[in-house]
Amino acid sequence: MCEANAYIYKDGKEELYLESVDIMVPEEGKIYLKNLFGEQKVFIGKIKEISLLKHKIVLENK
Amino acid sequence: MCEANAYIYKDGKEELYLESVDIMVPEEGKIYLKNLFGEQKVFIGKIKEISLLKHKIVLENK
Repeated sequence: MCEANAYIYKDGKEELYLESVDIMVPEEGKIYLKNLFGEQKVFIGKIKEISLLKHKIVLENK
Repeated sequence: MCEANAYIYKDGKEELYLESVDIMVPEEGKIYLKNLFGEQKVFIGKIKEISLLKHKIVLENK
């Protein structure tokens, strides 16, 4: 499968925020995420970097 | 492989912008993209939506 895990980058560390993310919709100052299991979260902040080959999404507080 | 194609959404249509995207780094008002083949592009605009299961990134001009 081609989902990715979303992490929050803070103080040089990455903390898991949501596993197996399928959908991401950035909006003003926040990001709507939905995963394979139908779990939904809204992160206040922005996308720092995405690496699809590493299955990794890194989010960051503003 | 788990790369995705990036499309530009315009007037209700989606036009292919970059195939086989691996890395995406959003910055102020633009998005840096790099694909599997080392091709790099900078898109002026924002991410509209990402669906990893569909291998699809949709970008939008501001």
